[in-house]
Amino acid sequence: MKKNKIAKGIAVSGLLLSMVPAGISTAADDAAKTTQGQAPVSKNLIVLIGDGMGPAQVAAARYYSKTKLNQEHLNLDSYYVGQATTYADRGEDGGKVVSGVVTDSASAGTAFATGHKTYNAGISVSNEDVSLPYASVIEAAEKSGKATGLVTTARITHATPAVYASHVRSRDNENAIASQYLDSGVDVLFGGGKQFFVTKEEKGKRPDKSLLPDFQAKGYQLVENAEGLQSLTAKNSKALGLFGSSHVAYTPDRDASTPSLAAMTGKALEILSADEKGFAIMIEGGRIDHASHANDFPSTVQEVMDFDAAVKVAMDFAKKDGNTSVVITADHETGGLSLSRDNLYELNIDLWDKQKKSSEALIPLLTKATTIEEIKQIVADNTWITDLTDEEAQFILKGDGSSYKQEGAYNNVIAKRLLVGWSGHGHSAVDVGVWAYGPIADQVKGQIDNTQIAKASASVIGVDLAAAAAELQAKYLYPKFKITREGTVLYPAKALGEKLGAAVVWDEASRSVKLTKGSQSMTVSVETNKVQLNGQDAAYAANVDNGSLYLPLEAFNSLTGTSMTWDSLSERLVLK
Amino acid sequence: MKKNKIAKGIAVSGLLLSMVPAGISTAADDAAKTTQGQAPVSKNLIVLIGDGMGPAQVAAARYYSKTKLNQEHLNLDSYYVGQATTYADRGEDGGKVVSGVVTDSASAGTAFATGHKTYNAGISVSNEDVSLPYASVIEAAEKSGKATGLVTTARITHATPAVYASHVRSRDNENAIASQYLDSGVDVLFGGGKQFFVTKEEKGKRPDKSLLPDFQAKGYQLVENAEGLQSLTAKNSKALGLFGSSHVAYTPDRDASTPSLAAMTGKALEILSADEKGFAIMIEGGRIDHASHANDFPSTVQEVMDFDAAVKVAMDFAKKDGNTSVVITADHETGGLSLSRDNLYELNIDLWDKQKKSSEALIPLLTKATTIEEIKQIVADNTWITDLTDEEAQFILKGDGSSYKQEGAYNNVIAKRLLVGWSGHGHSAVDVGVWAYGPIADQVKGQIDNTQIAKASASVIGVDLAAAAAELQAKYLYPKFKITREGTVLYPAKALGEKLGAAVVWDEASRSVKLTKGSQSMTVSVETNKVQLNGQDAAYAANVDNGSLYLPLEAFNSLTGTSMTWDSLSERLVLK
Repeated sequence: MKKNKIAKGIAVSGLLLSMVPAGISTAADDAAKTTQGQAPVSKNLIVLIGDGMGPAQVAAARYYSKTKLNQEHLNLDSYYVGQATTYADRGEDGGKVVSGVVTDSASAGTAFATGHKTYNAGISVSNEDVSLPYASVIEAAEKSGKATGLVTTARITHATPAVYASHVRSRDNENAIASQYLDSGVDVLFGGGKQFFVTKEEKGKRPDKSLLPDFQAKGYQLVENAEGLQSLTAKNSKALGLFGSSHVAYTPDRDASTPSLAAMTGKALEILSADEKGFAIMIEGGRIDHASHANDFPSTVQEVMDFDAAVKVAMDFAKKDGNTSVVITADHETGGLSLSRDNLYELNIDLWDKQKKSSEALIPLLTKATTIEEIKQIVADNTWITDLTDEEAQFILKGDGSSYKQEGAYNNVIAKRLLVGWSGHGHSAVDVGVWAYGPIADQVKGQIDNTQIAKASASVIGVDLAAAAAELQAKYLYPKFKITREGTVLYPAKALGEKLGAAVVWDEASRSVKLTKGSQSMTVSVETNKVQLNGQDAAYAANVDNGSLYLPLEAFNSLTGTSMTWDSLSERLVLK
Repeated sequence: MKKNKIAKGIAVSGLLLSMVPAGISTAADDAAKTTQGQAPVSKNLIVLIGDGMGPAQVAAARYYSKTKLNQEHLNLDSYYVGQATTYADRGEDGGKVVSGVVTDSASAGTAFATGHKTYNAGISVSNEDVSLPYASVIEAAEKSGKATGLVTTARITHATPAVYASHVRSRDNENAIASQYLDSGVDVLFGGGKQFFVTKEEKGKRPDKSLLPDFQAKGYQLVENAEGLQSLTAKNSKALGLFGSSHVAYTPDRDASTPSLAAMTGKALEILSADEKGFAIMIEGGRIDHASHANDFPSTVQEVMDFDAAVKVAMDFAKKDGNTSVVITADHETGGLSLSRDNLYELNIDLWDKQKKSSEALIPLLTKATTIEEIKQIVADNTWITDLTDEEAQFILKGDGSSYKQEGAYNNVIAKRLLVGWSGHGHSAVDVGVWAYGPIADQVKGQIDNTQIAKASASVIGVDLAAAAAELQAKYLYPKFKITREGTVLYPAKALGEKLGAAVVWDEASRSVKLTKGSQSMTVSVETNKVQLNGQDAAYAANVDNGSLYLPLEAFNSLTGTSMTWDSLSERLVLK
């Protein structure tokens, strides 16, 4: 999210007159409290998320399965129980994050992992200028002594797994997410994203250090391919599987070294189910979303099939185990997919598996091509299309005008021939399906909001989201902030001051802001930026940016008697 | 459907060698039989159909309701139980109708009214060259002595109501549908479509006669506006309400004389519930589909809201009554609607109710306009848009290249500003929602096919679809046919001959087709078109068209000893 450093501190105007001081512990709300003190009805919890898997993506996979594989139904189908709304928390103007209503994976994930709505890009933190962390069902399960796991075909540091075991203001902070995993206690981590675990020297993206030795020191067995995955046994109680520098390869692009989601799922369940106290795991088909963003329809279908195969593994386990709840949903629909287009009442299903590699795999070729002949050859080599028109080739050469460029145009041409439509490269706001097995089914059936997934998840295994959140909130605050040219980190005076329990008032006559907490009093002139603590000049200065007042950490510590420190990697204040 | 007169009779080739003679009674299949002999669990049945109401249409109405009406949920929402597949019966090549897999309202309606899949355009008839009628739950209820009703905002002769009380090969034959209603016994008929009940002289489309006196002679009270509707009481056991020459006006275009779907629903329930034996009714929000076909998003939302208000009336009745099952679904999605577009994560919900009249109401103005200034004025008068660009106005002036022309282009411009997308003007193949109340709910929950709606409907009120179908099939056959320049109606020799139990074989040596049944034998030369019956020259001739052999009715009657007659209005053979 680009917004996270555009901080809004204190408005130097009469706006201050309406301020109401607030304490820190505001976020353990009614919603999460409903899970307190309930007896567990399932020992184990499996959450499966099809990222970007809207109703049309599911129906497309079923048509494919029926027509080309002669299987009338998806594994998913017999577990359908309802649908969920997915909207993001738009927030409010005047100091709060304002987010679009169409959710991203971070906001939706926060909802179904923690039971709380937030803004787009927020990873299990609240939608405030000074955000609070929300606890996920995986974190609450970990605290209760259960084994826990996160499995995905996306980067393991991507939004959907991230919301279950990390807390950052911006999903883009994947280095921090990887570091937080190390302290999370999560036992099994399978996915892509090795780049956020290793340094630039090791072809990674970390400026600090490689995390791999740290994971190994904590007992994690490290594996990096299908063979390594298979070599793991239930004796490896902790495992980190990184099957790609970025995302795990698309289903059509995989070779034997890349495990399927079903294989990762099977191994994770084998390991976690050895824990006597039970387990909680989230398994994501992470690349349905990516294929749909690119408008790569054939790969979208294959990714849903890959996910559906993992569903079978999970359901087979749950049925055999007899003490497991399974819930399946999506975070949102991606691409605005429609099954038909242009007023035709047909789908060219016979062609849906005639694309060899994903469109992503073609990017190097498409980018390098300079003539329509080259484009025609690329398309002919990868599809059934030998009659690409000059106009189509020219369009691919030029790109579709979006950030997907030639790839987007290529997929646009393919979609027309397959008789499917896409409304863009972003997400859409249609409700998503909910499937379930075991005692959780009754709690997620019908028309629900995605927050209900978290509440039901916690409820069935008898863990307390509110208590886990309170623990986190006693440790961390996630303020908006800015960094000066000199490298000083500054925080919004009004928002952080109030969150710490200070009263913050504006004095028009002296053009200054007064912050008070208990006997401590601080006055800040917005004309001179001078700060006085209890009448004495402070060694630090304030900063006014875009009409908002900022102060350094020392100011807040002095005023409130705290000794907060700044965790610059995770961009959070550590309270104790 | 254009295909219905492109008959395929007998292939004059070796294809005949593989023919297997078949009798008439083939269609009472296992599916429908499941409802036989079951005890009813509900006295009354209410089926509500949102035509074209896909997942995105429902979600859009909910966003509108929440944001603009401050109502968090639709009336629908608390009854959500599952979703249904909608695909049409594609049929097979070689003599059978080949239909696209993306359903139309006729095919989907046949499925959820009768429990049988068919081809697009077929109104409760099978997908064959000689089709058989399928009985609907309304027809089976009527036979069981229950009161019955059909209510819609579309023409009452449109596909969705038609599938419940008529049988024709082509949905376009609305004159026949109106005539069949007269004999159907259906007690309450509310909707538009007066044009198919009156003659051309009365601004209608019937070439034969006005049906209104016939309806009145059968005891139907005739009403034509909201006041008339309200004047009806439970004492009017039969009522025909025609609230428009074609469809009932769109919600935003209605004046006080036009009833809402909720008003029609309330009155229909008042009348039908007076019947001691109970009732079965189908209520359709028929114009969600039309607005979505045109890509008129604001009207789509208003039509879903109009439908949702009728849902409340139905549910309130069912809850008070205590002996009623309600099931709600859609026939298909229309337009490929997506809630978001162009990679933006936002919806401009605040603007969704800023269009005054439907786009349909603007057609006369848009068609007449010749300058971009006129277009700008039309748009400004009907919407919030005062900054239409020259480019947008030019696009509207020119039309969108579809049959929706200027209206399509206008809606395209509006959709962009509302941040929603459409993939075309046709239907799409995404699954549709299923909502239910009462004993039927358990039979339609989860992932189902739309045929299950019919089976559950019949089951809960204890009526027998198979028995009702058998009765119809003993009376009527629906062959493909062709009409010669001289006006003779001809039927496909192979398909109809076999359906009547004759053996049909091709003799290559004599270039002739031999049809035999019992002791009767007919030989037809495809070279001379001469027909011999038991060795004697017949007075009639055969016809070979496009490689298929056709014979007149007399030939079939002579060969099989039947005395079938041709019902030219309903385009069917009357067996007895």
